Amino acid sequence: MDRSKGRTVNQLAEMTGGRVIGDGTTIIWGPAPIETAEKGQITFLANPKYAPMLPLTRASAAIIGEDVAPPDLPVIVTKDPYLTFAKVAAFFLPKPVWTGRISPQAAIDSDVVIGEGSSVYPFVSVGAGSRIGQRVTLLPGVVIGREVVIGNDCLIYPNVTILDRCRLGSRVIIQAGTVIGSDGYGFAPDGRAYFKIPQVGIVQIDDDVELGANNTVDRAAMGVTHIKRGVKTDNLVHIAHNVVIGEDTLLVAQVGISGSTKVGNHVIMAGQVGVVGHLSIADDVMIGPQSGVTKSLEKGAVVTGYPAMPHRTFLKTSVLIPKLPELNKTVQRLEKRILELEQKLDLQTKTDPD
Amino acid sequence: MDRSKGRTVNQLAEMTGGRVIGDGTTIIWGPAPIETAEKGQITFLANPKYAPMLPLTRASAAIIGEDVAPPDLPVIVTKDPYLTFAKVAAFFLPKPVWTGRISPQAAIDSDVVIGEGSSVYPFVSVGAGSRIGQRVTLLPGVVIGREVVIGNDCLIYPNVTILDRCRLGSRVIIQAGTVIGSDGYGFAPDGRAYFKIPQVGIVQIDDDVELGANNTVDRAAMGVTHIKRGVKTDNLVHIAHNVVIGEDTLLVAQVGISGSTKVGNHVIMAGQVGVVGHLSIADDVMIGPQSGVTKSLEKGAVVTGYPAMPHRTFLKTSVLIPKLPELNKTVQRLEKRILELEQKLDLQTKTDPD
Amino acid sequence: MDRSKGRTVNQLAEMTGGRVIGDGTTIIWGPAPIETAEKGQITFLANPKYAPMLPLTRASAAIIGEDVAPPDLPVIVTKDPYLTFAKVAAFFLPKPVWTGRISPQAAIDSDVVIGEGSSVYPFVSVGAGSRIGQRVTLLPGVVIGREVVIGNDCLIYPNVTILDRCRLGSRVIIQAGTVIGSDGYGFAPDGRAYFKIPQVGIVQIDDDVELGANNTVDRAAMGVTHIKRGVKTDNLVHIAHNVVIGEDTLLVAQVGISGSTKVGNHVIMAGQVGVVGHLSIADDVMIGPQSGVTKSLEKGAVVTGYPAMPHRTFLKTSVLIPKLPELNKTVQRLEKRILELEQKLDLQTKTDPD
Repeated sequence: MDRSKGRTVNQLAEMTGGRVIGDGTTIIWGPAPIETAEKGQITFLANPKYAPMLPLTRASAAIIGEDVAPPDLPVIVTKDPYLTFAKVAAFFLPKPVWTGRISPQAAIDSDVVIGEGSSVYPFVSVGAGSRIGQRVTLLPGVVIGREVVIGNDCLIYPNVTILDRCRLGSRVIIQAGTVIGSDGYGFAPDGRAYFKIPQVGIVQIDDDVELGANNTVDRAAMGVTHIKRGVKTDNLVHIAHNVVIGEDTLLVAQVGISGSTKVGNHVIMAGQVGVVGHLSIADDVMIGPQSGVTKSLEKGAVVTGYPAMPHRTFLKTSVLIPKLPELNKTVQRLEKRILELEQKLDLQTKTDPD
Repeated sequence: MDRSKGRTVNQLAEMTGGRVIGDGTTIIWGPAPIETAEKGQITFLANPKYAPMLPLTRASAAIIGEDVAPPDLPVIVTKDPYLTFAKVAAFFLPKPVWTGRISPQAAIDSDVVIGEGSSVYPFVSVGAGSRIGQRVTLLPGVVIGREVVIGNDCLIYPNVTILDRCRLGSRVIIQAGTVIGSDGYGFAPDGRAYFKIPQVGIVQIDDDVELGANNTVDRAAMGVTHIKRGVKTDNLVHIAHNVVIGEDTLLVAQVGISGSTKVGNHVIMAGQVGVVGHLSIADDVMIGPQSGVTKSLEKGAVVTGYPAMPHRTFLKTSVLIPKLPELNKTVQRLEKRILELEQKLDLQTKTDPD
Repeated sequence: MDRSKGRTVNQLAEMTGGRVIGDGTTIIWGPAPIETAEKGQITFLANPKYAPMLPLTRASAAIIGEDVAPPDLPVIVTKDPYLTFAKVAAFFLPKPVWTGRISPQAAIDSDVVIGEGSSVYPFVSVGAGSRIGQRVTLLPGVVIGREVVIGNDCLIYPNVTILDRCRLGSRVIIQAGTVIGSDGYGFAPDGRAYFKIPQVGIVQIDDDVELGANNTVDRAAMGVTHIKRGVKTDNLVHIAHNVVIGEDTLLVAQVGISGSTKVGNHVIMAGQVGVVGHLSIADDVMIGPQSGVTKSLEKGAVVTGYPAMPHRTFLKTSVLIPKLPELNKTVQRLEKRILELEQKLDLQTKTDPD
């Protein structure tokens, strides 16, 4: 814990915009989860149902929501305790320190510009004509192609590959092993074999995007595969050529988006979702885990399933699918009872005197 | 645009086998999509339904199918306008130029042979006894194990790993981050723990194969994991040990094929398909997205679903699954009506004088 | 085949604990599958249904189960012929030989300790303060972060990334391209955008774990993502932050486990399974391929499906889903017959004299 960073509860509340109840002059040296917090640390309560744990914590302060009765501790009251805690934690936690220099074991080709304060680690390769901004970190094994443009304050983890002519904005984070600018999957049938369609577009990644580990983002056939401001992807996500991902959209692990699909702003796709090509997924759509999306979706749609259907329908059908054997038997029994009824009625009619 | 490469419409038609209507002496300098094409460029119309866009294009020529009325432009008429355009585009687009030499920052072990015209970039490692053909490109961070054999004109993107004794044919393209020759997933239960089965086979990849980014292709336990001529995989595809993939087969993103399964020629598996082990998937099979294949499939089968079923059946069931709650209610109502009928009939019988 | 390693059938039986029938002095030089085995080799029969192949093999000995009639060959009889063969094969097969030294083309930062007999290949990077055990192999392109701890006898394949402060036990194998210690996927909504939650925990991997190629294992937000002794993962597996995987658990290719889920010992998840976050999967659970697990599972549960249901139920519903169109028509026909019955009965009642 960085003791030079002690801050009063009042100071933390001012930084994050919360309201203090209790002794705001208490000094805090770091953040901790409620169960493991010690004296001098601040903790948080994101879910009111855990409120009974608050009196048991050894923390010196807590961040709580407006719906929680303040405990016998100095507290910061805020609309979103989780977010406030994240900001406090980000303040206290040590930032990694990078070298701020270009390793002599890196391979920098001709006509490369690297901005001030950037760190280029051993075994990083930067191709001819690329321009890297200021305070960028390229960790070991990163490969930057030719004529790549990277903005300021980007953090590129080891063994990431960013291929020719792709562009990154500022404050972009790419986790390890991810590939940006691989060829799109485009082949034209030529008899029984396939002819490779040239993939000459690029990938453009805007400011504040974070891509997880071992993602793959294909360059456009022509034009741009575009990942807009604030998008966050989890690990092993696949984004095909000419896809557009709107601002602040979340793609959870192992999602796959097929070619030319346009995804709106503030969409959430849960893990292992697959989306077919050439669709339009509007803003604020939510897609449940493992769903298969085969049709365009309108603003605010909430879908799940294979194929995807309204989430409420999915919940109902999910209960019924395991009961299909029962339903099937019921129908067989009904058929039998109908037959019996028919026979009875038939018999009646036959035996009927008229 | 490479102006040294201007060609008349007649010349392009001759190159690709099409028939010219209109002024075949018009000179073309490059390809472009119909919306963005400029004077001097050639465009194409793959789908007749977009024919009304043709008169609006600024392109100087177009490639069209035989079912489209020729517009007021020089055109190349062909059976497959998309393929013809791809060939024209491939002709015009600049090919990347590689160094054609071995970087002093590469690590080449003993007894390695590298053919003429090959490019070995910084931080490439080639293990003892490997043989690399002519005009092969090994981009930065590529790791070639020991006794690997690579044919001519292969293009291996950054951070690809090709492990000991694996073999590649000629004109093979491997996108970034892909792993060839990782150990197969073989463990024998030994009490509660597992004993690792030695994986001593190899991966063999034949001519004209292209593998996407971050694929994994496991070596055989014994023998060969075999990817045959012309196979094209998309990103994040998994191919297990002892699998065989037939010629000109397409595996779309995130497909997974389990151990020892044999896939025929000219099969297409859409995204996120999973195939269990030890199956036989015959030639010309098509498998829809996210399907789970648990049984062998005969030549030409078209299946989708989880588990996979004939595609036509899948389409019908897909419509019915969201209607299951309705079907369930209908059956409950029918049961009630039957009960009423039974009671009525029973009453009749009882009140019946005889 | 290593002729210096010839062993009698008796010696092999002693090594693996089997019982010999026939001439135990026969000398064996290596293992082979039943179809390709030659004189001097030992083969095995894992499945009694292939017993008719035994008389046809050219092998000089075989390993068989107790339920198979001994053929006219020296045999080792054992409870688990596959395991016994694996052990015999592991004995005969050549182990790869590593350099046992630190390449001058590696980048070893300050305060690094590397144990005796370890092999560090070119273009390996080891960050400050890391401690690597004895006889560890770091193949080309491996990136080890800062303050990483690795035990003895680990084998880390090319282009693997192990980030700051992660810890590996002994005899751990990591296949190529895998990422350990990427940031967990944690973002708190902040208006429309997202605020990155600091991910300051680590990944801990215990003894005898093997991870497949291109896996991703995220570090904990706080605390530990923990992979316990003997776990084996296949390729392209995703393990999110704060997940715990119990001992001897198997995760087959493309499995994804969401944040904070706890998986017990000796669990098996088949390919492409997805598990949502914050669940508890007890010991000895088995989960079928492509299942979507949305609820905690009790000890020994066997489930499959989307969402996951008891495996027996899944088998029954799987048969019925393709028959839904038929069921639907049946219900429509029954409805019609009921209507006819109702009308008849209604008519009867009306025409009824009383």
